[in-house]
Amino acid sequence: MKKIINDPNAVAAELLDGLVDFYNGEASLVTSGVVVMNDIPNNKVALLVAGGSGHEPIYHGLIGKNFADGAACGDIFAAPPPNIMLDATRSVNQGNGVLYLYGNYSGDVLNFNIAEQLARAEGINVETVLIWDDVASASPDEKDKRRGIAGLIPIVKLAGAASNTVDTLDELVRIATKARDNTRSIGVALAPGSIPATGLPTFELGEDDIGIGMGIHGEQGVGVEKMMSADELTTKMMDLIFRDDLAFESGDEVVVLVNSLGSTTLMECLIVLKKVKQILNERGVKIYDVITGNKVTCQEMAGLSISLTKMDDELKPLWDMPCSSLGYTKL
Amino acid sequence: MKKIINDPNAVAAELLDGLVDFYNGEASLVTSGVVVMNDIPNNKVALLVAGGSGHEPIYHGLIGKNFADGAACGDIFAAPPPNIMLDATRSVNQGNGVLYLYGNYSGDVLNFNIAEQLARAEGINVETVLIWDDVASASPDEKDKRRGIAGLIPIVKLAGAASNTVDTLDELVRIATKARDNTRSIGVALAPGSIPATGLPTFELGEDDIGIGMGIHGEQGVGVEKMMSADELTTKMMDLIFRDDLAFESGDEVVVLVNSLGSTTLMECLIVLKKVKQILNERGVKIYDVITGNKVTCQEMAGLSISLTKMDDELKPLWDMPCSSLGYTKL
Repeated sequence: MKKIINDPNAVAAELLDGLVDFYNGEASLVTSGVVVMNDIPNNKVALLVAGGSGHEPIYHGLIGKNFADGAACGDIFAAPPPNIMLDATRSVNQGNGVLYLYGNYSGDVLNFNIAEQLARAEGINVETVLIWDDVASASPDEKDKRRGIAGLIPIVKLAGAASNTVDTLDELVRIATKARDNTRSIGVALAPGSIPATGLPTFELGEDDIGIGMGIHGEQGVGVEKMMSADELTTKMMDLIFRDDLAFESGDEVVVLVNSLGSTTLMECLIVLKKVKQILNERGVKIYDVITGNKVTCQEMAGLSISLTKMDDELKPLWDMPCSSLGYTKL
Repeated sequence: MKKIINDPNAVAAELLDGLVDFYNGEASLVTSGVVVMNDIPNNKVALLVAGGSGHEPIYHGLIGKNFADGAACGDIFAAPPPNIMLDATRSVNQGNGVLYLYGNYSGDVLNFNIAEQLARAEGINVETVLIWDDVASASPDEKDKRRGIAGLIPIVKLAGAASNTVDTLDELVRIATKARDNTRSIGVALAPGSIPATGLPTFELGEDDIGIGMGIHGEQGVGVEKMMSADELTTKMMDLIFRDDLAFESGDEVVVLVNSLGSTTLMECLIVLKKVKQILNERGVKIYDVITGNKVTCQEMAGLSISLTKMDDELKPLWDMPCSSLGYTKL
């Protein structure tokens, strides 16, 4: 796999420099692996996201206006170590607490729990909300074993908006938790991405196979099936969401995200969106807003995911709040 | 190549339905191949874009608020026929003229010139500005032989903003022409995309080769070279832009677009952006704003392009105007 890079072992650091260049004066690299928005308001409850690199635009591309205040970034596909997370915590902290909002992966949880303890020992008020939107990775009564996948986009968007309206960290925890609990996702894999340092694929999948519920690193899903049409696949994916424990009923309103995992085209995302809309229509579920494109990726992996976030009267104004970031901008 | 589609021969029509679903009540499919924003203000000078499908999000994903008013969409990689363009013209026309703004490809020019004549015969005031930003496709004194590539994003963005401020079509022509003349792009190809209906690659390129200036359909560029580092490649690309007839000098300000042609990752775009910024710094050229991501694609093609648009006191406020579309949203 040809990639446009320099030193294959320095891609994470270099892309972070480029990320800061993208923000063009609005964000800074505070220390290795830590990007933070400039001019975070005094006393703001801070929102910190974190995770491995290689999945751009997440997580570091979610810093921005009415979005996350900072991000701790690991090496490619690797959790940032506790000291990086601690540095990021200090950098975003404005004296009113810091929410850690990130995907439920064991390496991240381990490292960020240590950082949380260290930050608390310094007197910084830190709370954590784990993102676990992937219905394919554990049963509904074991949600804490579920992975965080593309649903993190609407969840971080809502939390980012809320972080500008709340007075306390507890209130931000409550809203971020609600956004998380109102979100369900399911992904499918068609082909792996490749590891920048080696060029090797991240997993194996047969030429005519599709991994239903397979994770972005090739983690086990609900099964491998033969390739099928977009309509059949979308129906199957939506059924897996509907079979879960969050009701989507007539009159409900949802934000829909159809996310490309990398090389799957926007053409395909739109064809899937068409079927998602039809299926929601049949249930009487109304689409409140739509996001589509490459939002949570694994290099040039092929595949996509569907996420639904159920709106309510508290979440709607937060959704409507304009926001701006590399990953998602809303007018 | 596995793709998530239904009927391989109906992908263009299906993705257009999905596009309308994305706009979620803000745009409509007026007739086959014609998508138009709802509620175009009376007497507004209308902006119409057009081109083949398969390059999503362009062109049809550039309709939106302070962006294009409508788009005429062809089949995959095919120019929309004159009657579709005429239908689109009628649909966006609000009595104050219609600007055709699209990429300089012979099939499109042929068809849209016919549509222009037909529209004029109906009494609709139509003018055309061709986009020809690709420095690799002809010499500076034969600009009308140059292709339109990713520079169309800043050009349409500026024209879309201007279309909301001008009183006359002539004034919009003037500003769109200036935006075009202030924009230069260069692209490189690493690997082809595939044709949805057949699964066949759009062109051939050696395993270790990179096509400098190669077009999105594999059109000849300035040469095929061996794969090189991101920094070397970026330097070479920037040199080709600087060698052209538009001066980029100390004190100038530019909008930079680093565009992925499909499967090239945002990681790679950011690494290239880092070098672009460094090269511009060395020249004393200031970055006014940055766009990056999958904006002008050819299915899952690998490669990227760099575009520079020189700003001035007239273009800056147009750039600063918020806009919203599938392809690009700015707060």
